[in-house]
Amino acid sequence: MQQIGIVGFRGYSGAELLRILPRHPSVTPYLMEHREDGAHTFAIRRTHQPACIPCTPEAVQQHQLAVVFLATAADVSMELAPAMLAAGARVIDLSGAFRLRTPENYTTWYKEPHTQQALLVEAVYGLPEFCRSAIATARLIANPGCYPTAANLAIRPLVEAGVIDRSAGVICDAKSGVSGAGRKPSLKTSFCEVTENFSAYSILKHRHVPEVLQISGLEEREFSFTAQLLPLDRGILETIYFRTAVSSAEDLLAIYENRYAAEPFIRLYHAGQVPDLRAVARTNFCDIGVTFDPKTGRAVVVSAIDNLVKGAAGQAVQNMNLMLGYPETEALL
Amino acid sequence: MQQIGIVGFRGYSGAELLRILPRHPSVTPYLMEHREDGAHTFAIRRTHQPACIPCTPEAVQQHQLAVVFLATAADVSMELAPAMLAAGARVIDLSGAFRLRTPENYTTWYKEPHTQQALLVEAVYGLPEFCRSAIATARLIANPGCYPTAANLAIRPLVEAGVIDRSAGVICDAKSGVSGAGRKPSLKTSFCEVTENFSAYSILKHRHVPEVLQISGLEEREFSFTAQLLPLDRGILETIYFRTAVSSAEDLLAIYENRYAAEPFIRLYHAGQVPDLRAVARTNFCDIGVTFDPKTGRAVVVSAIDNLVKGAAGQAVQNMNLMLGYPETEALL
Amino acid sequence: MQQIGIVGFRGYSGAELLRILPRHPSVTPYLMEHREDGAHTFAIRRTHQPACIPCTPEAVQQHQLAVVFLATAADVSMELAPAMLAAGARVIDLSGAFRLRTPENYTTWYKEPHTQQALLVEAVYGLPEFCRSAIATARLIANPGCYPTAANLAIRPLVEAGVIDRSAGVICDAKSGVSGAGRKPSLKTSFCEVTENFSAYSILKHRHVPEVLQISGLEEREFSFTAQLLPLDRGILETIYFRTAVSSAEDLLAIYENRYAAEPFIRLYHAGQVPDLRAVARTNFCDIGVTFDPKTGRAVVVSAIDNLVKGAAGQAVQNMNLMLGYPETEALL
Amino acid sequence: MQQIGIVGFRGYSGAELLRILPRHPSVTPYLMEHREDGAHTFAIRRTHQPACIPCTPEAVQQHQLAVVFLATAADVSMELAPAMLAAGARVIDLSGAFRLRTPENYTTWYKEPHTQQALLVEAVYGLPEFCRSAIATARLIANPGCYPTAANLAIRPLVEAGVIDRSAGVICDAKSGVSGAGRKPSLKTSFCEVTENFSAYSILKHRHVPEVLQISGLEEREFSFTAQLLPLDRGILETIYFRTAVSSAEDLLAIYENRYAAEPFIRLYHAGQVPDLRAVARTNFCDIGVTFDPKTGRAVVVSAIDNLVKGAAGQAVQNMNLMLGYPETEALL
Repeated sequence: MQQIGIVGFRGYSGAELLRILPRHPSVTPYLMEHREDGAHTFAIRRTHQPACIPCTPEAVQQHQLAVVFLATAADVSMELAPAMLAAGARVIDLSGAFRLRTPENYTTWYKEPHTQQALLVEAVYGLPEFCRSAIATARLIANPGCYPTAANLAIRPLVEAGVIDRSAGVICDAKSGVSGAGRKPSLKTSFCEVTENFSAYSILKHRHVPEVLQISGLEEREFSFTAQLLPLDRGILETIYFRTAVSSAEDLLAIYENRYAAEPFIRLYHAGQVPDLRAVARTNFCDIGVTFDPKTGRAVVVSAIDNLVKGAAGQAVQNMNLMLGYPETEALL
Repeated sequence: MQQIGIVGFRGYSGAELLRILPRHPSVTPYLMEHREDGAHTFAIRRTHQPACIPCTPEAVQQHQLAVVFLATAADVSMELAPAMLAAGARVIDLSGAFRLRTPENYTTWYKEPHTQQALLVEAVYGLPEFCRSAIATARLIANPGCYPTAANLAIRPLVEAGVIDRSAGVICDAKSGVSGAGRKPSLKTSFCEVTENFSAYSILKHRHVPEVLQISGLEEREFSFTAQLLPLDRGILETIYFRTAVSSAEDLLAIYENRYAAEPFIRLYHAGQVPDLRAVARTNFCDIGVTFDPKTGRAVVVSAIDNLVKGAAGQAVQNMNLMLGYPETEALL
Repeated sequence: MQQIGIVGFRGYSGAELLRILPRHPSVTPYLMEHREDGAHTFAIRRTHQPACIPCTPEAVQQHQLAVVFLATAADVSMELAPAMLAAGARVIDLSGAFRLRTPENYTTWYKEPHTQQALLVEAVYGLPEFCRSAIATARLIANPGCYPTAANLAIRPLVEAGVIDRSAGVICDAKSGVSGAGRKPSLKTSFCEVTENFSAYSILKHRHVPEVLQISGLEEREFSFTAQLLPLDRGILETIYFRTAVSSAEDLLAIYENRYAAEPFIRLYHAGQVPDLRAVARTNFCDIGVTFDPKTGRAVVVSAIDNLVKGAAGQAVQNMNLMLGYPETEALL
Repeated sequence: MQQIGIVGFRGYSGAELLRILPRHPSVTPYLMEHREDGAHTFAIRRTHQPACIPCTPEAVQQHQLAVVFLATAADVSMELAPAMLAAGARVIDLSGAFRLRTPENYTTWYKEPHTQQALLVEAVYGLPEFCRSAIATARLIANPGCYPTAANLAIRPLVEAGVIDRSAGVICDAKSGVSGAGRKPSLKTSFCEVTENFSAYSILKHRHVPEVLQISGLEEREFSFTAQLLPLDRGILETIYFRTAVSSAEDLLAIYENRYAAEPFIRLYHAGQVPDLRAVARTNFCDIGVTFDPKTGRAVVVSAIDNLVKGAAGQAVQNMNLMLGYPETEALL
């Protein structure tokens, strides 16, 4: 039995960690209060919530936390990660603070200087399907962004296999539920603005683009990405378009089947069938389906995840399992 | 004051005609019962509904209907259109029965023979922005499909201007509200299957594709189209990707501004800003916004309409206004 | 042609005034900027928005505004109403500032002192079905709250007719769409908190209760009211329970029919049939249906309105029509 | 390890059993095909679904099914229950077939004769909080209706304690998500009819009323019930009004605390706080909160469940755990 801490448990990713972790037979979660925001109260009487401790190095040591999850904003993560590591915990950071490989790239996309450049070098990108061995021994995990998880799992095997006509470009038309925008109230995520609506944002300039380029193997000029807001709570579906010289959807599926044969959280669909968001809601699966039109040589790959699970908290627990030596699927099936 | 008839008034497009037409100062609508489905009853007492008449040539003549709207399935429209025309009415058909130029094309996409080939030749495609003069004198209007309306209004001016790099292809990622599927109950449109869900269908093989090809000027091998179902009632938003040699979004906007300067129902957005569905809900507008990334030479055009208004009933009334000599915007602003 | 001003046009009630008033043939609306919040910009090019003027007595006089609508919070309305009146405009206030008859009652429910007690005495409660003649000549209208509008229109005719067994009490279980909470972002109205959720609030202590008591004729001990939040944009439906000595739903309907025979915005349903929110969305109707169980002597009345129309902006325009001598239904059908 | 069968696994309650049971360490579920509806196909490759067997006595015996869940319509349950019992399985029926105590009552509310009157006598009502010991040894469980579960858990302790002023009546204003209507497509549950809508149905005459009367201890003339459809997938919230001579919400809460001290699935809220649907979604909890107004002597109790879990499949598994001697919360926390 090991102890783990959760900072940012009031946000949607943090709350999702709290939903998942009680099912884990080998860890005890603690809530970690980062700011003084008053006494913690529950509407429900006699409820059994995890204990709440301060977010301090002393608390990390006193409770012998093996892992601390940072479900916080990037600037808060940059502040907390060194302190938690120094106190002896390993850190899984769900923000964008440690995902990009260079401080220059971080500054370009996050519009602020990177204050922990040594940790940026040390951090391991937490996409188990492609970085499993490094994750197991890492002190600091940069848990992937939600959009890049769905995109990279769909695109990289095809880039590796060399079947994409890169000269014609890869289009990723991405749609996300509102929980991806976080829990802080804003007009953009107010119910009356979102219901019966659909909107595009950050067209061709979303900060998740460099994460896709780092992992997928595509070059900037080969990749177009649009983020769009769906009137629903959770889920990301990406519709990915490209030209290819293969002769059938089965050819593409065979590449995925081969690459993901041992992966517990990748599910493939029969040719011509594609996932919807319902198939992945509240699961850690990434579902992938392929359609191909031989007349035009064009393929459409649909990749779907739950943005709070495989796109955040679930993948973080998957990483924790790898780091602590538990079965990779523990608490996740 | 002229009389007009509405067949299929229980469906969503027909009901939308009933919402729009009472605001028109110069026409009196009649409900036309196509099948015997029992006495018509209203939950509301003393309500003033339009009169209900049979859907017969005799009724057309007796009430001197100038126009009959067919908000019916394609096979019903093929049956009714000749009878209504013979009785002296002009016909605006909202189905796909008369949109494609050849019976072969119709059979390929609608999986049934075309039984009214002479009318197929005579029918005028009812997209006022490109077919205005022919509409004014037509006996039979093929009111455009919802997806093609949003696509053609966005794509054709750019094809005409020759600014699209057609070798790299044009991707149209389309999303529609559920009312586009009609009112007939089905599992696919049941609330519990749609809410908190998002799904793609008819990928690369939607029957609206040939309508886009006919009008936009693109070739089949240049155009990829995916239809997707949004968890909302009404609205279509299409995200359109292509490569171009222009140097800014303003260059593309200038093409639209020039082409649509006199159009009452096309609204353009400032460069980098794009419409959402809320902007067009319950209006006859088609809103178009442009984003361009000079680093990659890629542009994204977002085109949005209300599928039941500019995508169906509103455009039908716009066509009626042209046919009967009323101001084109009557009842539509 | 008369000029009218709208303060608070960015809120949902103000925006609804902007949706309704352009259809009015006899008034020209002006947007009135109350606070300095920067230049007004539109995403849509060449759009024809109403002119924007300052919210000052000088602007009222310069543009000869006949009526100013205050779609503002109660404290702002208390500040602005005297200034607008002094400048010669008549005022229709959509807040709760002038609805309650005594300053003590206001302080009890709104938790702040009333600073305009003379205006509180002068203000006319703007429920046309019960206060029509006073509205026509009023300088200051207290436009009714949304919940009280649906409740009073359903309850008062029955209290007047003496058919309710008041000793057993009247229960009003009210449900509202989220737009009733206003446009200011808050966690309670964030999409992810509201979608797939339903919650009760202000149980037995909502500040709209005294407005119901003032108009309905019920005593405090006879009336129980619960407000609840529906996961939808607009609409209020109230399910009202009471015991009665009548012998059928028709008896109750006859009372309504008699009382509302000449009312353009009250619609009654056949016995046993009740309205849903779809029936009233984007209309100024209040729809009322009655169910009665002779075995138990209990009746259920369902009353439905659009909270932004008959519950706010539509009723405000109805009041304006009465004040300025236009047909009461102008711009509202 | 015991084997269990699920008939009606394509419906929402059956699918919910399939979601819950794989987490149970001691049972192996089988899908039972009741009608020949073609080969069973899955879009997902290599998925590990439960085995599919025929719904026959032979299959029950061959696979030694300890329990068969009938997630079927009442008439199908009446047909299947005797056959499954005769083959040696115990039966948990999720329909209304065996809930009412007399065949006359069944015929009154379900509009058809009861064909299994001996089983109607034998069946045990499966509400563990009030029938636990009988459930443990029963052969046939009538799993409670969704509305009655939320109502009876809230009302019966107060009736037992004698604190309700029954002469003034008890009002239960109930709201349910759409999954309560089942998976069969119908216009009433079509997305476009439900979204942005709210409607009442079966006012004062819902077939769940007699189930409340049987368990709660109230008489017919004392109880008013209205069912209403929320635009959401799952959840029931009931707002219950009554007069009482107690002096505070705490007095009522003390009654619940006492009655439910050992219950694992009842959660109580602090005085004045009430549950919303989000609190119980995808859980087997029934959450209860109390508000009281001493000025009027009126109380409001809010009772919330997930209609597919505590209102159907979850409660069925709770019953199965009791019948087979597993911990009552197995697979349910």
